Amino acid sequence: MGPHPAVADVRRAVRLSLADLAASRDAGESSGALVLVACSGGADSLALAAATGFAAPRLGLRAGLLTVDHGLQEGSAGRAHDVVRLAPTLGLDPAEALTVTVGTAGGPEAAAREARYAALSAAADRLGAAAVLLGHTRDDQAETVLLRLARGSGTRSLSGMAEVTGLYRRPLLGLGRARTRQACDALGLSPWDDPHNDDPAYARVRVRRDALPALEAALGPGVAEALARTARLCRDDADALDAWADAVHAKSRGPGGELNVAVLADVPGAVRRRVIRRAAVEAGAHAAALAAVHIEAVERLVTGWHGQKGVDLPGGVGVVRRCGTLVFAVDNLSLA
Amino acid sequence: MGPHPAVADVRRAVRLSLADLAASRDAGESSGALVLVACSGGADSLALAAATGFAAPRLGLRAGLLTVDHGLQEGSAGRAHDVVRLAPTLGLDPAEALTVTVGTAGGPEAAAREARYAALSAAADRLGAAAVLLGHTRDDQAETVLLRLARGSGTRSLSGMAEVTGLYRRPLLGLGRARTRQACDALGLSPWDDPHNDDPAYARVRVRRDALPALEAALGPGVAEALARTARLCRDDADALDAWADAVHAKSRGPGGELNVAVLADVPGAVRRRVIRRAAVEAGAHAAALAAVHIEAVERLVTGWHGQKGVDLPGGVGVVRRCGTLVFAVDNLSLA
Repeated sequence: MGPHPAVADVRRAVRLSLADLAASRDAGESSGALVLVACSGGADSLALAAATGFAAPRLGLRAGLLTVDHGLQEGSAGRAHDVVRLAPTLGLDPAEALTVTVGTAGGPEAAAREARYAALSAAADRLGAAAVLLGHTRDDQAETVLLRLARGSGTRSLSGMAEVTGLYRRPLLGLGRARTRQACDALGLSPWDDPHNDDPAYARVRVRRDALPALEAALGPGVAEALARTARLCRDDADALDAWADAVHAKSRGPGGELNVAVLADVPGAVRRRVIRRAAVEAGAHAAALAAVHIEAVERLVTGWHGQKGVDLPGGVGVVRRCGTLVFAVDNLSLA
Repeated sequence: MGPHPAVADVRRAVRLSLADLAASRDAGESSGALVLVACSGGADSLALAAATGFAAPRLGLRAGLLTVDHGLQEGSAGRAHDVVRLAPTLGLDPAEALTVTVGTAGGPEAAAREARYAALSAAADRLGAAAVLLGHTRDDQAETVLLRLARGSGTRSLSGMAEVTGLYRRPLLGLGRARTRQACDALGLSPWDDPHNDDPAYARVRVRRDALPALEAALGPGVAEALARTARLCRDDADALDAWADAVHAKSRGPGGELNVAVLADVPGAVRRRVIRRAAVEAGAHAAALAAVHIEAVERLVTGWHGQKGVDLPGGVGVVRRCGTLVFAVDNLSLA
């Protein structure tokens, strides 16, 4: 008898995600690469950990586990200890609990995330890991897309979380959350339910509990899948446009970082605005504070030119049009 | 004393939308172009009609009104008559009620829309109009984006309704629905409230009444604006990618409609898949039935080639890879 279908689904997702690393065994290396699962003890990452402990050796890979103790909830150290103790029974070795100190910059969620990824990256580096696997599911992706929608910030933003970002991989983006819980049940694993996941103080929790069910009620079932599909399509589109913008930036850019107006005038607005944003950030403009209204004002120096004066960007960068180019300069230099 | 701020907002939106047509007066034409407002009698199109009757003459344009009697609700003929009678008091002449017969193809909403646009286009043609103005607001745009999200069909789909499509213009896409109602109130106009706008049998009504408020509650105010902004950004991105795909299609296309594999292999996936879709539709594949899974199977003939057999597309079109090209052919021809 084969494994429970949910267990098989999670294992298959892990195998697909690690397939490129498995090739190193065929290349004759004596010991397989190490992959680490970042596991909170919740259903998603617990199912991921179990599947990785099963699948990795069969791909000639070593598999280990990392769990992060944020020190924010009572009993967090004990829980991290429990997860580490469970690891060998799942076929995961080494297993480590990483204790982090969470700051306050950017709000509690952002601060915890930053501390967590810093600790995971440092441990992966120290252990020489080829990949760190994260348990984000299709439902997490759908929530991310809805959260980003509320910002109205376009294709890249809507593309959600990537399957691969540097060392990090998300094998479960194609699976629903219900599937990971079924997998845990089938394997007799008892996931930990983080009370933060039910705390409506978090926008993500409100999206999960209220907004997504309301969307499903209005639009019919399958909204989470549709949002995840939207994310994939938007990611491909954003990648293509970024590649185009890179090429146009290289072509239009002069030795001092100025941009050739004729080159910019000749490409679609979506590409032109991406190139302007790159040049502005390169000149020292504050990326996070650069809004559409700033970029569009610079764009009008190209598409609506009537001799207007320059544009001031956040971060103390000024842009003027001069001799058929856009000149980006920090404000304390003379722009004539 | 100037007009009520809401009235001023709607007039400004109309002026901006018609600015390019106004230029024809400066060019010395004896009589201005005719613009027609499509008016149901609802708050949005009624405010639009009043603003157009005010703004158009000041731009040297003539303005008229069309209203469509779908014959689907009791009293619809009388209501169309009332709207036509109101037109001269708003400065709109000519004014016509168009009676249409609504079919059933594609469901009641789609059938009514098709009949309505056919009648509007025919009347605009007959009257020699330069534009037909539609009363869709930012809230309609937000609803459209959410409805499209549920399909998960990507950037073009998320781009919602265009400000300009051929003869049709939507001056009010930047204004909230509450603003048009305020404008009607300020002008002493009594809009008609279409009972269909409250009928939860329609997905759009469920989105408006339930899903958008739930999103606002979860994510904070400004969701409709964010969705409308998303639509604009996605439209620009989709336009740029379509332009790229057009260029690649032209470059890769052989005399029989076949595509050069080397050219396709050299561009990002988002562009490649758009080119494949174009070629497939050109060859006779059924556009509406062409799903991502079909396009991706054809794509693997380029990016994952291992001598696999051809791909069958809806509409009886087969695709095979032969001599470094993708050959699209209707199935009853030999593909060897």
